[in-house]
Order: sequence, then structure tokens, then C-alpha cells
Amino acid sequence: MTVARTVELEGHIIDSGMMQQCFGVVMDLGGNFDVEVFEVGEHKDAESYCRMTVTADDEESLREILHELHQHGAHLSDPPNATLKPAPGDRVVPHGFYSTTNHPTKVRYDDEWLPVENIEMDCAVVVEPGADGDPGDERDAENGRDGGPRAYTKVLNAIEEGDLVVTDEAGVRVDPPERPRGSKGPFGFMQGGVSAERPSESLIREIAESVAETKAEGGSVLAVAGPAVIHSGAGDALARLVREGYVDMLSAGNGFAVHDLERGQYGTSLGMDVETLESPRKGHKHHIYTISEIIRAGGIEQAVEQGLVEEGVMYECVVNDAPYVLAGSIRDDGPLPDTITDAVEAQNAIREQAREADLVVMLSTLLHSVAVGNCLPSTTKVVCVDINPATVTQLLDRGSAQAIGMVTDVGTFVPKLAEVLVDDA
Amino acid sequence: MTVARTVELEGHIIDSGMMQQCFGVVMDLGGNFDVEVFEVGEHKDAESYCRMTVTADDEESLREILHELHQHGAHLSDPPNATLKPAPGDRVVPHGFYSTTNHPTKVRYDDEWLPVENIEMDCAVVVEPGADGDPGDERDAENGRDGGPRAYTKVLNAIEEGDLVVTDEAGVRVDPPERPRGSKGPFGFMQGGVSAERPSESLIREIAESVAETKAEGGSVLAVAGPAVIHSGAGDALARLVREGYVDMLSAGNGFAVHDLERGQYGTSLGMDVETLESPRKGHKHHIYTISEIIRAGGIEQAVEQGLVEEGVMYECVVNDAPYVLAGSIRDDGPLPDTITDAVEAQNAIREQAREADLVVMLSTLLHSVAVGNCLPSTTKVVCVDINPATVTQLLDRGSAQAIGMVTDVGTFVPKLAEVLVDDA
Amino acid sequence: MTVARTVELEGHIIDSGMMQQCFGVVMDLGGNFDVEVFEVGEHKDAESYCRMTVTADDEESLREILHELHQHGAHLSDPPNATLKPAPGDRVVPHGFYSTTNHPTKVRYDDEWLPVENIEMDCAVVVEPGADGDPGDERDAENGRDGGPRAYTKVLNAIEEGDLVVTDEAGVRVDPPERPRGSKGPFGFMQGGVSAERPSESLIREIAESVAETKAEGGSVLAVAGPAVIHSGAGDALARLVREGYVDMLSAGNGFAVHDLERGQYGTSLGMDVETLESPRKGHKHHIYTISEIIRAGGIEQAVEQGLVEEGVMYECVVNDAPYVLAGSIRDDGPLPDTITDAVEAQNAIREQAREADLVVMLSTLLHSVAVGNCLPSTTKVVCVDINPATVTQLLDRGSAQAIGMVTDVGTFVPKLAEVLVDDA
Amino acid sequence: MTVARTVELEGHIIDSGMMQQCFGVVMDLGGNFDVEVFEVGEHKDAESYCRMTVTADDEESLREILHELHQHGAHLSDPPNATLKPAPGDRVVPHGFYSTTNHPTKVRYDDEWLPVENIEMDCAVVVEPGADGDPGDERDAENGRDGGPRAYTKVLNAIEEGDLVVTDEAGVRVDPPERPRGSKGPFGFMQGGVSAERPSESLIREIAESVAETKAEGGSVLAVAGPAVIHSGAGDALARLVREGYVDMLSAGNGFAVHDLERGQYGTSLGMDVETLESPRKGHKHHIYTISEIIRAGGIEQAVEQGLVEEGVMYECVVNDAPYVLAGSIRDDGPLPDTITDAVEAQNAIREQAREADLVVMLSTLLHSVAVGNCLPSTTKVVCVDINPATVTQLLDRGSAQAIGMVTDVGTFVPKLAEVLVDDA
Repeated sequence: MTVARTVELEGHIIDSGMMQQCFGVVMDLGGNFDVEVFEVGEHKDAESYCRMTVTADDEESLREILHELHQHGAHLSDPPNATLKPAPGDRVVPHGFYSTTNHPTKVRYDDEWLPVENIEMDCAVVVEPGADGDPGDERDAENGRDGGPRAYTKVLNAIEEGDLVVTDEAGVRVDPPERPRGSKGPFGFMQGGVSAERPSESLIREIAESVAETKAEGGSVLAVAGPAVIHSGAGDALARLVREGYVDMLSAGNGFAVHDLERGQYGTSLGMDVETLESPRKGHKHHIYTISEIIRAGGIEQAVEQGLVEEGVMYECVVNDAPYVLAGSIRDDGPLPDTITDAVEAQNAIREQAREADLVVMLSTLLHSVAVGNCLPSTTKVVCVDINPATVTQLLDRGSAQAIGMVTDVGTFVPKLAEVLVDDA
Repeated sequence: MTVARTVELEGHIIDSGMMQQCFGVVMDLGGNFDVEVFEVGEHKDAESYCRMTVTADDEESLREILHELHQHGAHLSDPPNATLKPAPGDRVVPHGFYSTTNHPTKVRYDDEWLPVENIEMDCAVVVEPGADGDPGDERDAENGRDGGPRAYTKVLNAIEEGDLVVTDEAGVRVDPPERPRGSKGPFGFMQGGVSAERPSESLIREIAESVAETKAEGGSVLAVAGPAVIHSGAGDALARLVREGYVDMLSAGNGFAVHDLERGQYGTSLGMDVETLESPRKGHKHHIYTISEIIRAGGIEQAVEQGLVEEGVMYECVVNDAPYVLAGSIRDDGPLPDTITDAVEAQNAIREQAREADLVVMLSTLLHSVAVGNCLPSTTKVVCVDINPATVTQLLDRGSAQAIGMVTDVGTFVPKLAEVLVDDA
Repeated sequence: MTVARTVELEGHIIDSGMMQQCFGVVMDLGGNFDVEVFEVGEHKDAESYCRMTVTADDEESLREILHELHQHGAHLSDPPNATLKPAPGDRVVPHGFYSTTNHPTKVRYDDEWLPVENIEMDCAVVVEPGADGDPGDERDAENGRDGGPRAYTKVLNAIEEGDLVVTDEAGVRVDPPERPRGSKGPFGFMQGGVSAERPSESLIREIAESVAETKAEGGSVLAVAGPAVIHSGAGDALARLVREGYVDMLSAGNGFAVHDLERGQYGTSLGMDVETLESPRKGHKHHIYTISEIIRAGGIEQAVEQGLVEEGVMYECVVNDAPYVLAGSIRDDGPLPDTITDAVEAQNAIREQAREADLVVMLSTLLHSVAVGNCLPSTTKVVCVDINPATVTQLLDRGSAQAIGMVTDVGTFVPKLAEVLVDDA
Repeated sequence: MTVARTVELEGHIIDSGMMQQCFGVVMDLGGNFDVEVFEVGEHKDAESYCRMTVTADDEESLREILHELHQHGAHLSDPPNATLKPAPGDRVVPHGFYSTTNHPTKVRYDDEWLPVENIEMDCAVVVEPGADGDPGDERDAENGRDGGPRAYTKVLNAIEEGDLVVTDEAGVRVDPPERPRGSKGPFGFMQGGVSAERPSESLIREIAESVAETKAEGGSVLAVAGPAVIHSGAGDALARLVREGYVDMLSAGNGFAVHDLERGQYGTSLGMDVETLESPRKGHKHHIYTISEIIRAGGIEQAVEQGLVEEGVMYECVVNDAPYVLAGSIRDDGPLPDTITDAVEAQNAIREQAREADLVVMLSTLLHSVAVGNCLPSTTKVVCVDINPATVTQLLDRGSAQAIGMVTDVGTFVPKLAEVLVDDA
């Protein structure tokens, strides 16, 4: 047995995204809908109208759906009056009070819609009944009003005992703004972005699940890694992910490889010991010495074979047959013999990897991530991790259908990811 | 006389935003549409279908509309075959070649839809006709294919003379990805953000127009300003905007006022001369001395009356009766007698200003901008300027219907804005 | 004709950069110097000594040079007593009052050097003459002092009429901190730039050692925390650090407390479940509902007593008697009854905490960290963690002698810190 | 038993921080020192001199100390000749080769100090013995040299078998630059931290003066420009600076050139009209169409000759014979025929430009700025402009003796710079 209710959407419901959101809400929450009327305003200023019956399995689910629809501007076709409860004390609101959005809002009182004055986010709505014809009411005179009922916002600390406060959302109607049409000018419409404010460890766990799932389905994981992975001390963890088979391919640059190999040979990255944080004297030479040693050996694979390199990300790639592409760039030192110095050749090598990847994890490199991203269809899953929110935004802007952006520190991200994938598996 | 064409939308056209975008395109480009069929997929996995006739005033306009609709996934109900032209030389594409998106794409060849292999952004599409039953075709054998026709992407520098390249978008069909439904998990759907990469001076000119328009309509402009306005040398320009009546109200903090007053008294901001960039010896004391002088005078207005302050933003506010709110904060030195140290009182003062504002210009202050933004209805216009993209993103996230975010330097922004508004008026 | 004066530099004048700066000052300002004595402390703990005669063309130039030398720690070889002037009114300092640095400072009174108590930047120095043998002096008894003279800092708004305030810098001596020698550990010396490219987990381990060491020495750890600590899912870990006694005091804002309490009551932060990353429907109301529940209860302590709150950072503070200061700000919702809404009162509360702290850990809040930092002497250890490098740079710029800046994600930092301190202990 | 050695410091050893660092090195590494002679240059241009005996517990420790002292500019009082070893193969340096800093350097050969030509970081130093009176030596004639010995830098991949490479640091002397004295102007001295809070327009005026001064002295200005210069609408202003002779050389990437040429052909940058901010329909194709047109023309110069391009930065470079280097990268579309796709070749082209430059202005590109910066001696003036403070910090960290970092918007910076240089001249 199902329960149903009829709701209406009015206004620029297409332009404002209202219709799309409302349909989405119903489907996301497990309900169904039946569009009874759908009139599209065909001209610039014409409004549209949609009436639909929403069905859910039980009252609780239906209530949830209606709550969400309400937030997006839908309203019941037969709205009740708003519920009013007196505030039990100064600064104390009744339980279940209606908390405002910042959009134009009306409350239904005495079977009419009262606009809420001074709309502002996160306030209570107080209704003042009309003056009841009492000509001596001081407040009415003061307000220059004709004595009709009013509704207005009050912040919590301004609530006074006895204020009639709207509770629940029955009888409340919100009008989200529509997108300006035609020549839009410079004003944008509620653009969003990437926020650092998400629970980091939970998000890492979800990313780990995606990696594990991709592997379980026989898919291929491509890591795109910048030198910061090594500087930040995450080299061991990435090496571990390669060794344990969670990373199948590596796309990086000459710098990444050099720092990783330096760490393998000298225990330092750009001369700093990544364990003790000490900079051993002469450490600043390790970088260029590493390059000259690998050149002398003939390349990374040869250096591994000759026992020159015995650990690290590049070592694990060689030993575990994980293919790597080292793309050259104009800021490279050396470069290493393995580095593809021609940009077009390097792009072709990147392209091949990108096509095989089912999940791409981009770690602290804008240059290489853009290069890989350029070759990806919009259907490949992408995880993008960087400490700079602008980098994450830029990478996600490229239009992947399934993308996670995370503004965090790769130096703690990769170890935690490896811990969850390997230790907790 | 109008021209018309019938287009179809198929798939998760609501979820993907496709329908909303397509309706918007038609209206933005001055066309009309008539929805003939609209079937909503009511269940999670059901697809929707919409067929509509699009009308425009002339062929040229119609072609533009159809081009845009195409980009958003709509397609003609009677698709022609794709147009193929041979490449005139190696690395040279035919004029008007079709440049790919990164979404799954098909091209119509021989009255059938061929999926484009290895889809990737900004490529050409090359069609290889089938093997024509020639059993000896080497390439077919090589590819392990049955000799049917193929379509695939090629980057520009891989084009070879004679390649059959798709031109124009007739016979090309793009399938933008749909938003995953139900429990969405951590993967987001093509989130956008704020980019610094917009032409700065043109954008400043557009903002100037909005200010001028607001004033012409009798509206009120509220400037929310952080201390960086003064440090960055933009104090004179903001003072000018107050004097010339383009800024009606000021919302700021104790720090802003102190830096402005220091500049008025000593010509320095935090001890640095903002003209010569020299730090006069003892300059670092100017800050705290300024505060003690204003306290001695009894407040900013008194200091202006006593001739202690003869220029600057605060001076112009006093002289031009532009009301200002200085909200206190826990990092204030002093504070000045004018600073409202109680946060609740300060919020109330800010609230009153916010309600009167028709346009709010937020200049380099997250704290005060959030405080003002909290009190604004979603219908007030907002311009937000900061050098930190994260600040701009956070402020725009609050859901203003008409907002401009600009990632730029207030030190050059305000002077340019004043120049355009005052000198070029 | 030239004028001359003899100055002395003592202590680790080479290590601290003092000598270099002093020589530079004289040369930049057009003076000359003649080094009379220069004794280099050759061993780790040996101090150096330099006496030189400074010459300038006229008294004015010489005074300027001596002013600057003073700022860098040089002092006259024949110091006069400090000049004292009574404050002409409440909150009004005498003209030319001496404004403090955050370095250990002495003032010369009655031919002896008095250490300035509670040294803090941008304050006035008030001298209280001794008790003159009057055994009945109440204040002396109160202070548990023997009646000798005292010097201490006062912020401008605490000045009372008649206070004897030090003016000019004659008779004032500043001791800038020296750079720690030998194996330096992770603490930098008044460092400006901060790089994200340091091994994150190793650095966290070093910070953990500093915390453990401070505790082992009976010291006090003050955590300054922003709301991002809760959003990023690090609330549990911080609560744990309070419970286990690694954090003794908390300095935060209304927002931090609300988010923490919301998490305790609803499991969400700003409506998002920090474990599952789901946003439960109606979740966006949790924030404002939490506030109204705490107001109803009468405050945080009452809410804990009433069983309304059973976990989280605030809960652990209440249960473990860890004092907290919640400083109000103009962007607060509510605020909670515990929040100190007056900025001056809040600063005084912060000041008290700051003076007791031996190690301050600043977590993702610029506003509160600056407020606390303003009250710290340059000798207190500071750890500053933020994902925004500009924030870290700004906080370290304030000149702490022992500071670690770390550009990382608090959402992974705090859990790792707690893991190292508690689990690995 | 201890071992000892005498070292000397000469020059502006106080101003440059050299003395402080050297004393610090000895103490940090457990050694002791005895200052034998210390003569302070008392006047602006006088040099100082310090001779000291350094003592350590064993040879190994002493060697370490001397190595570090060397890096900071100290040298043995009895310097030996440099050790030269032949390179064992092409691109292979001898073990222990001396890796350069970017400071002016001399090597001791045949008991004389040879200045190292083309000093640049992380290179080997190759010594060419003199011509030995052989009048027929071709190379001498070629070089216009008198046949004396030479020392110069070589990057690792340019080393040829048999090259005489300096190993170890004996006989090598580094001269770190001194801090400019007196009125310092806007150029900082190897500064780390960068603040956005400086008066923008005043600073631009100072930068303009440096450019004008460099030109007046017959110097050469190299602009390093990223694509944001065009997106942000600053293309016209940069073109103007080339046309008016304030920019002599251009170092950029494929992306910069494409965006500039797109603007010249279509008036758009990435499809957006930089004047009107409108995105003309089909505008997003302009980017890839521009590339195909230039390929068709055969290159930029040909496109200018054929009248295809009639304005913009590249146009002005061609018309005014300002040499440009377009270095390829893996994120390039196309690329243009002018783009040097091989990273090593591109570096060599950049190196040549860098050596000729007297002032380098880096505009919104980290990649190209680092590449150019890598090739610069520490004595070249550098101006670095970016909206991201982390980029500016990273670029200034490389240790230029005279550098200005400015965190601002190139979209307003370049137009203002051109205005000051051209209009106000």
C-alpha cells in the first residue's frame, strides 16, 4: 500500500533548476511521481507550471520527500495554514520551529499567504495577528500599518516569550530565485565549488572502497603522481600500493622519479631526510648525484638490476611490472634516460595509459593531471587530491561524470589510503 | 516567417540537466519551442524522452540554436549521415572539422550510428569505411576486426593526408553522462568553481555598470571592506567612491578604520608609506599611536571635527553622512571608541545596513563579508572581490541569485573601479 | 661636527642576527660605527659581546639610529632610568608612550632593571613603585609580594588615570630571542616562508614529541581550534586528546562549539554525517536546532549535566575540567550562552589562557589564532596547522622564537597526532 | 686531539649574512672557531674581512664544516688548485663532481682564479686549458679568445667524454651576493615570504622604473608569460610593451601562443570574448581551429606574413623582431609548428635567452618561470607576478639577489604597467 500527495511547482521552474531537483529528490528518496500537468512557459517571461502526484511506500517516507520538495520550492496543492506556537521564554524557540532559508518566503495565515518580512537565513518566523480593529493599538500606529497580520524573521536571541513562532514547514512556501535569462551579463547564478570542509578520514575510506571495487571488477588503477608525494613522505605508502597491486600504472615526471630514487639511494628528498627531518650536510647534492648515477647505470631498470636501487615507487614498478610513463618537462634536471623528453611522444604514451585506466588517482600534480585528464573520456572515474583547492577545482572542471575532489595533504592521504586498503582489508 | 526543426532528447535528460539546458538554450537564443512529447522515466533506471519543435526567425538563428542543442545532447529526429572530407595534408584537417567533446559520441555513417572509439576532447573524428569484403585487407586483420566501418579520434598532429574527417556536426550525436542517482557516494558530478581566468578590466567595467545602474535606480550600495584595502593602497580610491556618492554605506572592522586613520595621520599603513613603499623609522608605532589619538579625541567624528583627520575613507564617511558600522573582533587593537565590541549588537547594526542595500561590494574580508552575507536575502546583488579564490568560493556558496565573484587584487581593483565610475562617467 | 654615543650588544648576538641587523641599521641610516670590543662566544652556550661607538652628523640622525638599534636589542652603555608619565585619563596614554614588542623586556627604574611582567605586543608598560616599607599596603599583600617596584604591560583600554606609563625608549631594554643551536628539531626560528613540501607523518611525530615533552615537564598545552576541525572529522581525535590530558585548555569560537555539539547530538556537522558522508534529510536544520537546544538547557555545562550531550570536544572539556574560552564573532549563529560576545572581555579571557600556555597548537583558524598569538610572548612554543599556506605564513610572521608551521589537513593531522600520542605512547 | 684549518671571509660579509651563517655552521657542527682578524668595513662601500681558525675533533668533522663554510662563501686561506677529472663518457660525469650554485663562482687553475662563465645552478664545471700558444687552435679563434684557460658550466646531458670536470670543492670559490644598502627600493634580498599586503599601484610604479632603467642602461628585458595573461585580458597591454620596446624577448608555451593567436583571429580566448565577456556560440571551437589554421599556414611567422594574424603579442614579436621561445609541454593542444616539443632543446633555447636577460618579468606561469629561473645567475633582476602567493614564494625561494614578488592579478598588472611606462613616460 502506498500513500500519495499532490504538489505543484510554479514559476521559472526549468530555468531555476527547480524541476530537475524536485524530480531528483523523489527518485533519490525512493518515491515515484506522476506528472499530471506540465505547461512550459515558452517565452522569456512566461512562467511554467507542473502538477504531479508523489507516491511513497509509507507516511514517513512521504513526509521526508515532501520536506525536501519544500526546500526546493514545491508546495502542496492544498496548503494548510502554518502552525504557530508561542515561544516558551525569551531566546527560547518552540520545538520544531521553522528555520528560514534566504529565499523569498510566504507563510499561510488565516488562509492567505503572508510574505515574510526581512527574510534572512537561519531565523525563526514570527507571526503577528492583525490589530483586530482596535484603533488604539500602539504598535500598529508606530509601524504605520493598517492593522493586518504580519510575518517576519527573528534571530534566535531576539525571540521574546509569547512570540507566535512558525513550526514545521506546513503552510510555508519558498520561492527560489530563477536564473536570469538571455544576455546574462557578469552575474553568475549560485556557483558552487570545492570545499576543504569534508571529513577527511571518512572520505579516504570511501576512496579506498572505490579503488578496491575497481580492482575487484578487474579494472585498472592509474596513479598520477607529483614530486610532492615524495617530499611529503608518502613515497613508501605509494610503493606499497604498487607492490600490493592497488596501483597498476604510474604516470609521472622526471622530478618525481628523481626524488623517489634519491630517497632510495640516500634516504633524502631534495636533501632532507624524510624520516628525521634533518638535512644531512651535502644533502643538497643528492639530487643531482642521483641523476648522474642513474645515467651512468643506463636507466632505472638497469639501476634496479644492478642493485643500485632497492626500494621506492620506481623500484616497485620495475619489480612488479607496473608500466610507468615519465614525461619530460622544461624544468627537469638531467633528465633521466627513461624520461620521454618529446612532448608529443609523451602525450602518446600518456594517452595509451589513460585509455586503459578505469580509475585515475591524481596526486599533487597539476601538469601531469591535466595531461592525463585531457586524454580521458568523461566516463572514467577520477579522484583528485591536492592541497591547493584551485588545483582541485581546475581538474574537476574538465567534466568528468564521476569525480571526487579532495583538498588534503598527500603526505597523510597516501599512507592512510594504503593503511585502509592493505592493513584493514 | 519562421523556420522549424524537430529535435529529440533521450536518456536521463532530467537528471543530467540536459532538458533544463536545452530549454535554456532555445530561450536564450531567441527561439521558441513546442513540447510535443514528454515522457518522464519515473523509476530509477527508466529513461525519459522529449520531442519538441524548435522555431526561430531565420535559418541562421536556427542553425545556431541547433548547434548549441547538439552540444547538450539533443539530436535531430531525422539525422543525416555525417559529412566526411579528406584531410588535405599530413597534420592538416579540412576546414570546419568536427572537434570532439570528452563524452561518448556516435557518428552516423551509411545510415547507422558508429560509436567513436577512444573518445577524447579536442580531437578530429576519422571514419574508416568498411573492408568491403576484401579478405586481404591487412589493417582489418591487424585490428582483429570483421571489416566493418569504424570511427575513432585523432589528435591534430596525427592526421594523415587523405584521412576521412568528420566536418560540421550533422550526423554526430553526443551523450552527456547522467548524474548517478540514489545514494550518491562521494563522487560528485562535474562541479564547477570560481576561476581567476577572466578578463579583469572588462569585468571591472561590468561591475562599474552595475554600481552606476543601482545608483541611477535610486538604490543603495554597501561596501564591506577589509584592512587589505588600505594596505594595498586602495584607500584613496574607496574614499573617492564615498565622496562621489557611489558608496552609500560602509561595513568594516576596527582594523580597517585604524589603518585608514593611520594613513590619514601619518601617511603610512602598518608603518609603511603606501606611496613610497618606505618604512619610516618609528613607523611601526603609528598603528598604536593612531588608536591612542582617536581615543583621546573621543571618536572618529570628533577627530574629524578637531581637524585631526583630514582625509581617507572614514573622513569621507563622516563628511558625507555615509553611515558606517565598525564591528569589533577579538584580534582588534584598541579598540576605537566607535567600534561595536559586542558581537550581537554589531550583528544587529550590520543587519540594518544589509536590509537597506541593493548592491553589496565585498572587498577582501571574509569575516565581515560572511557576517553581512548572513543577513542578506538571496535577491540582493553581490560583488565579491578577493585575491584568495577560496574566499570568493565560500562567499558565493551562500546562495545569492545574482553574484559576481572576482579573484583579483583590491589594490588595483578599487582604483580601476573608481576610474571607470568617476573619470569615464 | 659629528655626535657620538656608545652602545652595547650582549648575548647570542651573532646567532640571533642581532649584530648583522645593528650594523645594517647604522649604515642604512647614514651613520658610522667603530667597533671597540668584539668578543665572540666560541662555545655553544657562550655569549658574545660587542661594544661600539656610533657616530652621526647631527643629534636628530643619531636619535633615529639609536631608536632602531634599540628595537634590535642594542642598548646604551650608560642607560638612564625610564621616563614615567601619569596617564591623563582612563584609557588615555601619555603622548609618546613606549609600545611593547613581544620579546622579554626590562625597564630601568631607580637604577635597576625591572623585568616587564606579562610581556605582550603593542601594550603600554606601567610601573608600580615599591611599597616603601608600608606594611599595610593591600595590593602588595594581595600579590604576595615584598613591596618592591613592579613593571607590567597594560593594553590601552585597561589604562587607568594616574597609571605611571613608560614613555620613549630610554631605560628600556629588549632581549630578542636567540636561535636554538645544534640539532634544531622541527621548530624554526622566527621563520617567514613555509613550505608544504615536508614529510608530513615525520613532522607530526616530532610535534607529538613536543607535546609529550611539554606535558612531561609539567607544562600546559592550549589548543586553538576552528570549526574545520569538526567538519573535517577530527572532532573525535581532539576530544580524545582532551580526555587523555594532552590538551589542557581550549580556545575557540561559537561556531566550533556548535558544530561539535551538533555532532554530539545528531552525528552531523553542518548537516553532513561525518562518518558516512551522507547528508540526512533535514540535516541542514541540525545546526540551528543544536543552538536552540543548548540555549534551552542554559549552557553547555548544563546540557552535559542534563545528559543532552554525551560526547565530543566540549563534553570532554566539561568532564575533564579543561577550561575553555568561546569568543564571539559577528558571523555567529545563536550564539550559545557560553559564548563571550564582547570582544574586549573575550580578549581578556584569551589573554589569561595565553599566559598560562607553554605550547599553543593552532588548528585551522586564522581569527582565533591571531587573537591568541597577539597575547603571547615570543618565548612560547607555537605549532600552527592550516591547509592554507598564507594562513600559516601570517601566523608565523608574528615572531615566535620557536614555531612549527605545517600546511596540512587537520582532518588527518589531529587523528594522526592522537594516534602517535595515545596509541604509540 | 683536534685538527684545525684557517679560513677567510671577504666582502660584505655582515650585510650578506655570510658571517652569521658561517659562525652558525661551525657551532652547529660541533666545531669551534677563533677569530684572528675581524675588520669591519665602516662605510657603505667598504668591504669587511674576517680570518678565523676552525677546529674540530677529527678530520671527518672538519671536512664537513669546511664543506658547509664553502657553501656560504668562506674559503681556505691557502686554496689549492681545483681537482679536474675527465668525463668517462658522454653525459656521464666523474664521481664527486662539483655541482654549482647560482652565485658567481671562481675555480682555481694553475694558481689563478678563473671566473666560471655562464653560471647556473646544478651544473658541472668544465675547465678548458689554455691554447698553449698554438696559434692554429680553431676553437680559440672561434671564441675570439686569446687562448688562455676557461671555466664554464655544462648541464649533465651536455657533458662529452673527456671533458675536464671539476670534482670536490677544493679550489672553488663562491661569492654570494650582498644585500643592497641604503635606500633599498622595492627589490628584496633573497626574501622568502611574500605578502599580498603591499600598495599595489605604488609597487607597479617601482617595477616600471626598474624596467625603464634597465632599458636606459641598454639592458634586455625578458618576459615569461603564461596563458592567464591572455585570459585575463592583458594581451593588448603586453603586445604594447613589445611594440614600444620595453619587452625584448618572450619565453612562453604553446598555450600562451594559441590563446593569443585565437584572440587575434576570433577576438576570444578559450571561446570567451575578452571585451564583452560574452561567449559567442561555437566560441569553444576557436581554440582548436586557431591551431589548425596556424598549422595550415606553416607557423606563426607565415601566418603573420599571410595576413592571418594582425595583432597580439605573437604578432608584435614577429613584426618587431623580438625573439620568442615557445616551449612544449604535455598538456599542449596541437602543438603549433613553432613550439619546441623536446624538453632538452627547449631548455637550451630558454638558457640562451636567460643569459642575455638583465631583467626577467615572470607573469603567471610557474612552469615556465621555474624553467627560466633555473638558468639564471643569482645576479639577474627578477620580478615575479602571480595571483597565487605560493607560486611567488616558490619562485623567490630560488635565491635571486634582487627580486620583487608581487601577489596580484596580471589582468590589471600588465595594463597598469604599460600605462605607466608608455603613457606616463
